[in-house]
Amino acid sequence: MRLKVDLLPRGSYPDVVILVDVLRGTTNAPILLEAGAQHLYLSPSLKIARQFASENQLLMVGERDGMPMEGCNHPASPAELRNLKLQQDVMYLAQYTPQAVRQVQGAKHVLLGSFYNARAVIQKALQLATEEIAIVCTGQDGNETLEDTVCAGFLARRIEKHLEVQLLDAARMAMALVRAFPDVQEALVQSSTGQQLQKLRLYEDIAISSLISQTDEVPMLQEVILKEDTPIYRFE
Amino acid sequence: MRLKVDLLPRGSYPDVVILVDVLRGTTNAPILLEAGAQHLYLSPSLKIARQFASENQLLMVGERDGMPMEGCNHPASPAELRNLKLQQDVMYLAQYTPQAVRQVQGAKHVLLGSFYNARAVIQKALQLATEEIAIVCTGQDGNETLEDTVCAGFLARRIEKHLEVQLLDAARMAMALVRAFPDVQEALVQSSTGQQLQKLRLYEDIAISSLISQTDEVPMLQEVILKEDTPIYRFE
Repeated sequence: MRLKVDLLPRGSYPDVVILVDVLRGTTNAPILLEAGAQHLYLSPSLKIARQFASENQLLMVGERDGMPMEGCNHPASPAELRNLKLQQDVMYLAQYTPQAVRQVQGAKHVLLGSFYNARAVIQKALQLATEEIAIVCTGQDGNETLEDTVCAGFLARRIEKHLEVQLLDAARMAMALVRAFPDVQEALVQSSTGQQLQKLRLYEDIAISSLISQTDEVPMLQEVILKEDTPIYRFE
Repeated sequence: MRLKVDLLPRGSYPDVVILVDVLRGTTNAPILLEAGAQHLYLSPSLKIARQFASENQLLMVGERDGMPMEGCNHPASPAELRNLKLQQDVMYLAQYTPQAVRQVQGAKHVLLGSFYNARAVIQKALQLATEEIAIVCTGQDGNETLEDTVCAGFLARRIEKHLEVQLLDAARMAMALVRAFPDVQEALVQSSTGQQLQKLRLYEDIAISSLISQTDEVPMLQEVILKEDTPIYRFE
């Protein structure tokens, strides 16, 4: 079995992918399922996402660079989302996650993972994998992010205990980084995105995104719906 | 002033680049200058490199995956090279460095750096830079390497002391990794390339590549010679 860590989405993924976008895409995703959403939709096109949400009466969750977004019912804030009781399905207008899903959608299984659902996503990946578990960091606009890399290292260290694995240096780096951040929240605080959230006084979002194994929800890609050649991803 | 760390060559570099290929391209390069070579040539094409070396009576230094290479006078082993007294210029058939030079050759200044010439390459970069110092890891075939990243972090931490800099997360990651490897030799030992060198019993190459600030030589790109549309890089 191979265990791979990609600091950015690249290459092809034959088997299981755990996609990581700690601040805050893949932290919010399991929170939304736990809040009661049966289905969670993402799309790399904002226009298509809005259209689809309105046609299907979906709740819209999203913001851009920490600021409210027209037409959204809730901001992409884990602090707010985890207090919700939802009866509706959700279109989640995450900023970087949908594009990353597009880059890994060829995998047999695509799971969304973070610190928040760490234990559950690891268990699911171990159940499903026959060949490879690839932990893929979303990054931002083609730049690696500190919080995703540390989270990938955190997950990799736990997966490594269960498997005999071959490692490339990116996995070694991510795993060693966890040693440099024994308190993972410190990595989130120091990261570029973390600094931006602090400027917006979203301290609680950082704190919640640093919590480990708070839920058993593991959003898993179930269907790719094409609308005007643009994919809409259904997770549940 | 910007301080940038790229875990792989990418994007464009307007000002100063420190190219890092610890095992062993940019460790050997300053060693060869210190051994007496006035000029050091590299080319991404093995064929062109051999032709040019033979036409210009250059010494040839090189190997592939740690194995001797036809026509080479010396292997790419710092342990061996640092005992030489050279009277000739050198064609250095490094495995990954020339391709990386190609990716950064647009920069105003291209320096080759490693632990071995750390103090000198930092000093040179600080003298030359007006806008940006980019520490660019060579990696291997598009994969990040542990030893290059730790070295980039090591250099970045020292440069940061002299400058007020903006950082991206890749720089933060590399700098934090140095905390995880207080003995840098451990990073080289654990890296994929390091493990390959250990299989070949080239332990001393790892030890020498871990030594810090052993020389004042800083190979700097002086000229790009085109031969059949293929670049040959002259460093001195």
